[in-house]
Amino acid sequence: MADIGLVGLGVMGANLALNMAEKGYSVAVFNRTTEKTDAFIANAGSLAERLTPCKTLTELAEAVEPPRPVVIMVKAGEAVDSQADILAGHLAQGDILIDAGNANFHDTRRRVKEFADRGIDFLGVGVSGGEEGARHGPSVMAGGKPEAWARVEKIFNDIAAKFEGESCAALVGPEGAGHFVKTIHNGIEYADMQMIAEIYGIMRDGLGMAPAEMAEVFDQWNNGPLKSYLIEITAAVLGTTDPKTGGPLVDIILDTAGQKGTGRWSVIEAQDLGSPATVIEAAVAARSLSSQKEQRVADEALFGAAPRKIGPALGDRNSAMIILEEAMLAGKIAAYAQGFAVMAKASESFGWDLPLGTVAKIWRAGCIIRSAFLDDIASTYEADGAIRSLMTVEPFTGMLKATHGSLRRVCAEASLKGVPVLALGSALGYFDFARTARSTADLTQAQRDFFGAHGFERLDEPGKVAHGPWSNA
Amino acid sequence: MADIGLVGLGVMGANLALNMAEKGYSVAVFNRTTEKTDAFIANAGSLAERLTPCKTLTELAEAVEPPRPVVIMVKAGEAVDSQADILAGHLAQGDILIDAGNANFHDTRRRVKEFADRGIDFLGVGVSGGEEGARHGPSVMAGGKPEAWARVEKIFNDIAAKFEGESCAALVGPEGAGHFVKTIHNGIEYADMQMIAEIYGIMRDGLGMAPAEMAEVFDQWNNGPLKSYLIEITAAVLGTTDPKTGGPLVDIILDTAGQKGTGRWSVIEAQDLGSPATVIEAAVAARSLSSQKEQRVADEALFGAAPRKIGPALGDRNSAMIILEEAMLAGKIAAYAQGFAVMAKASESFGWDLPLGTVAKIWRAGCIIRSAFLDDIASTYEADGAIRSLMTVEPFTGMLKATHGSLRRVCAEASLKGVPVLALGSALGYFDFARTARSTADLTQAQRDFFGAHGFERLDEPGKVAHGPWSNA
Repeated sequence: MADIGLVGLGVMGANLALNMAEKGYSVAVFNRTTEKTDAFIANAGSLAERLTPCKTLTELAEAVEPPRPVVIMVKAGEAVDSQADILAGHLAQGDILIDAGNANFHDTRRRVKEFADRGIDFLGVGVSGGEEGARHGPSVMAGGKPEAWARVEKIFNDIAAKFEGESCAALVGPEGAGHFVKTIHNGIEYADMQMIAEIYGIMRDGLGMAPAEMAEVFDQWNNGPLKSYLIEITAAVLGTTDPKTGGPLVDIILDTAGQKGTGRWSVIEAQDLGSPATVIEAAVAARSLSSQKEQRVADEALFGAAPRKIGPALGDRNSAMIILEEAMLAGKIAAYAQGFAVMAKASESFGWDLPLGTVAKIWRAGCIIRSAFLDDIASTYEADGAIRSLMTVEPFTGMLKATHGSLRRVCAEASLKGVPVLALGSALGYFDFARTARSTADLTQAQRDFFGAHGFERLDEPGKVAHGPWSNA
Repeated sequence: MADIGLVGLGVMGANLALNMAEKGYSVAVFNRTTEKTDAFIANAGSLAERLTPCKTLTELAEAVEPPRPVVIMVKAGEAVDSQADILAGHLAQGDILIDAGNANFHDTRRRVKEFADRGIDFLGVGVSGGEEGARHGPSVMAGGKPEAWARVEKIFNDIAAKFEGESCAALVGPEGAGHFVKTIHNGIEYADMQMIAEIYGIMRDGLGMAPAEMAEVFDQWNNGPLKSYLIEITAAVLGTTDPKTGGPLVDIILDTAGQKGTGRWSVIEAQDLGSPATVIEAAVAARSLSSQKEQRVADEALFGAAPRKIGPALGDRNSAMIILEEAMLAGKIAAYAQGFAVMAKASESFGWDLPLGTVAKIWRAGCIIRSAFLDDIASTYEADGAIRSLMTVEPFTGMLKATHGSLRRVCAEASLKGVPVLALGSALGYFDFARTARSTADLTQAQRDFFGAHGFERLDEPGKVAHGPWSNA
């Protein structure tokens, strides 16, 4: 009998099944089209002996040892509902359905309830790391009942990435918590990628650097505080030659980026929770704007190209690279502070008690945003899970103090020369607003009282609602 | 018999009822607490003769001439559902329920369907202009069936604000369209207010200007292209002396701004539609950050206060004021371009056929964002309802060309000196990205292919999905 079942042999599902088989688990697999199942088994090599192909869901249910854990890895949305519903018809009380796709956590919350009514435990599990991660070690963020997780924990611990020997899989909370954490992970990933793109834009258009030169710089940065998978692959990508043209690969790629919705979801959740996520918002906007290629070409013709050349304003090449590295680090601290603040707010609002130190720990390997930086975040939250902002604890405060000056210079020069810095600028604006004791909302409150009688608080009468002399209230 | 019924005598409901009575309509009014109804009638003066107080909804239904139009003006959310449900029990086929509160348009869409099943027409009507507008002439954005609107149109035309004799009331589309347009109106209002707040911050903290001096400047601006209600009241507010202290009123107001949710809704809808609204996002974030006063005080102590003083970087006082005026105008064009783009996208997605020229026209008077600027927008959309961005049509293109340089200088100086410019910076970033023919998304696409096999398009092979040499795909 198989240890676990898996439904959906797309890229992620197939690689997860192979990963489990390689770790010694027997896996019963099913795909809607049997040809895909057959091809999967045929290409599985020696791992095929631990894989049981099933032609029907009845076969799958019969092949797995009860109580059965079954992973569903199909397209997020209605496919999950229909597949889970059919599958549940073949399952018994105490079996566990595991949605390992990129579900919206609202759907997961609903499904957990629906299946609980049918006596089936439902786990919502976020899996990050792309194809490679799924095959050799992803980061796994689970949500659901501890008893249900306990029964599959060993499998996920074994297949997950390891950071200094520790598994990057964990139950982070009840019901939709795992998919929520995955959503915020992706939001932060958007922010990281957009800030890298903006730095690249300044190097390319502001400083006239060639891809190979930039690759070297990112490679060096990967030995410093920015050390991370995304910086590593940025160096790799920029250093890649196009086999067809012999020129830099990046130069022949159309500059319109796609998005699958999780970045957008993370912004919507941040808005619902009232926790500002300006850098993620900027990153999602940048993806949308990038997709409007025709319009951008027309608008550059209409307004004329921006000068873009920054020249020596950031000093010589070495100085400029240090300034850019520091700007990226300052932006990164702001972006992660936003992402973790959104999770803290969700934890409070939904009563999840999210262990943010654990979240940071399971992001240290396997997932797209894995980095040295996350190790510091993990230590920070392990020491005190109730900190109010990453920006206000060491080592981040010290890093920010040392680097925000560079972020300022980069934003100022880019603004003057027309190199767009939506994400970096939003990071700076967030930091500057957050550390301004006296904001400008006194004017805003006066206006709101003027036109809407909303009232304001006087500094000399705390706790009372006051109105301006214009008011009848 | 009364011409119309009205349920809910809060500030907005009471003033709408008085407005209708003043325009010659007889209005049957009801409030959950009868004391409020009695007090309302007692204070209505000579208008009381056109007002029929009702103690029950049965009385209200009996008092209005069938087919009955009844306005509900209660707190948005569940109160609307419960009130409308009870009320519908007293109505007959062909009667019209009119929700004139600040509903979320998703709720309005649902209610239109639910009440259609009960034979009752439901209109969702956005009303802007605050207390004063409700009393003497609001802007009215209606959504629902044309037949239903036709039966109450005259009343709303009569009570609405007038712009050069034209009524600022209109049916803008079916079902939730009216409340959607109101939501975007409020999002733009947030953007306008935040940009004004940032300019005020630069004047106050960057240039050391006193409130009275600033009041003079805003007053002057109100004779130029920024002429608008919000600029007018900014001048009024900044020029107001606190009767208690004898000093400027704005200086004794606590700098934490409230929000009621419509700004947030407009961001969520923009995200759902995939239409970037970075300036509105920044404005909502600024409200949230303003509310974290204690943290801001602590963080200013932790990081040290920013220098803030901009000094002579923007030239002498006169030059600086011109630069700030131009920066505000450039930011405003970007913000309105975003808001109208969101409406255009909603119109397309929901099949609403929103008349954007009409929307701009009914915003020219009565509502909070009323301005000369909206007259230009109205002419623009009346001439061509299908333009893709306000930024790319005259007179806005010309204005942007003439002013974006000032927006750059303001953002650059504020960034260097630590005066937060979240909204102005987001406006500039949006403009700069929108007019950059070659974006940096080539790198983003390469990264996405590297870690997720998402594929990209080669410039030399349009329309095909390609992968990098790192890929097995």
